Amino acid sequence: MQCPSAALVIIGQELLSGKVKDENLGYLSQQLYGLGVDVKRVLFVPDEIEDIVEALRWVVDRHDYVFTTGGMGPTHDDVTVAAVSQALQRPLVHSPSLEALLERLYNVPAGPERTRLCRIPEGSELIYPEGSRYPQLIVGNVYLFPGVPSIVRKKFSAIAERFRSEPIYSEKLDLQKTELEILLPLTAVVEAYADVRIGSYPQYYEGKETVQLTLDGTQQERVLDALSMLKRLLGV
Amino acid sequence: MQCPSAALVIIGQELLSGKVKDENLGYLSQQLYGLGVDVKRVLFVPDEIEDIVEALRWVVDRHDYVFTTGGMGPTHDDVTVAAVSQALQRPLVHSPSLEALLERLYNVPAGPERTRLCRIPEGSELIYPEGSRYPQLIVGNVYLFPGVPSIVRKKFSAIAERFRSEPIYSEKLDLQKTELEILLPLTAVVEAYADVRIGSYPQYYEGKETVQLTLDGTQQERVLDALSMLKRLLGV
Repeated sequence: MQCPSAALVIIGQELLSGKVKDENLGYLSQQLYGLGVDVKRVLFVPDEIEDIVEALRWVVDRHDYVFTTGGMGPTHDDVTVAAVSQALQRPLVHSPSLEALLERLYNVPAGPERTRLCRIPEGSELIYPEGSRYPQLIVGNVYLFPGVPSIVRKKFSAIAERFRSEPIYSEKLDLQKTELEILLPLTAVVEAYADVRIGSYPQYYEGKETVQLTLDGTQQERVLDALSMLKRLLGV
Repeated sequence: MQCPSAALVIIGQELLSGKVKDENLGYLSQQLYGLGVDVKRVLFVPDEIEDIVEALRWVVDRHDYVFTTGGMGPTHDDVTVAAVSQALQRPLVHSPSLEALLERLYNVPAGPERTRLCRIPEGSELIYPEGSRYPQLIVGNVYLFPGVPSIVRKKFSAIAERFRSEPIYSEKLDLQKTELEILLPLTAVVEAYADVRIGSYPQYYEGKETVQLTLDGTQQERVLDALSMLKRLLGV
């Protein structure tokens, strides 16, 4: 499947120790897929600079877009901006517009804390989507979001159209059979349609196994042809 | 914090395209933390051998335990066993006990498909927890689980005690303040208690920001001392 690819780097110790259940992966992956962007990799890391830098270096040159969530506040465990600076080798520079905002909106008094909070990687883009109090920080192909799910939703919606690509067509087929029972027809279709991504998901309900097949591709006709072949071979 | 560390490799295209919401990360991270195991890294990858191998190589030598979920069925997109074999450089070998099981329990007829399904990495451990139909596959420090959440729960519970370590003590403190307001006292405690992991999580409700602080450590006394210092400095 040829479409833009993305990686998510989800930052937060609270998610790794199970204290908080992540909601950003489900939201962002669904939104991006709907926009025609293929999420290829998701990494959850703790709030430690070296862990975040390592994760970013792994994905930043290999994907069209990288989205981070978390670590954007003012406390000791908020190190995402510094990690992006290090991973992309862009030194931190002072942002006068951010400083004005901190003073005006949040009454942060002048001093070393405010100075620290206004440092962003060189060449960052700060955009101010409508309805957002705080700007969206973009560094190269890295989009930095906070961790709080309601804010992620708001901020992502505001810039979602930037990422819209050719649509991905999806079909599915629910079968009252087990994976073992459909193995041979399924394999034949997978081999005939290398450009269609076919998934097979067993489901269990009251001790009975059924299966859902999914078919995805950027060419709708190919997806529908693969579905027809599947149905024919399965006799459904 | 000194305790055993773990990584999760969560395999499944359906999770990356947002078609299915992952439940295994939340469950496994919470269980492991409760057992005193620190989950340090979680990777979500598609059902592609090279992606899984790369993820496994990244974590397998750096953590005490690696848990995989997904990709354990019989279809074309079930490639976890082959990926573990490759990542750990343990060739696939025939398992007579698995073959007997497939024949007896699932009526899989003899043939190339059954032979393929009975190949496991050399030196694998197959354990049969009580109540489980299918065995648990363990290869070195890698524990292979299926993707279906209800089966993960059942299979993990059956072997959970293997992972029990010194407990991690947790405390929390809810404050009707913003992160910016508590910045200085918080920083002082973080610096004084390097062995206590302190997290700060802003929460938003009806437009009002509050904050939850969490304190975790393997020495209960240190956790409680850090909490006392925090309360004293914050005047709460």
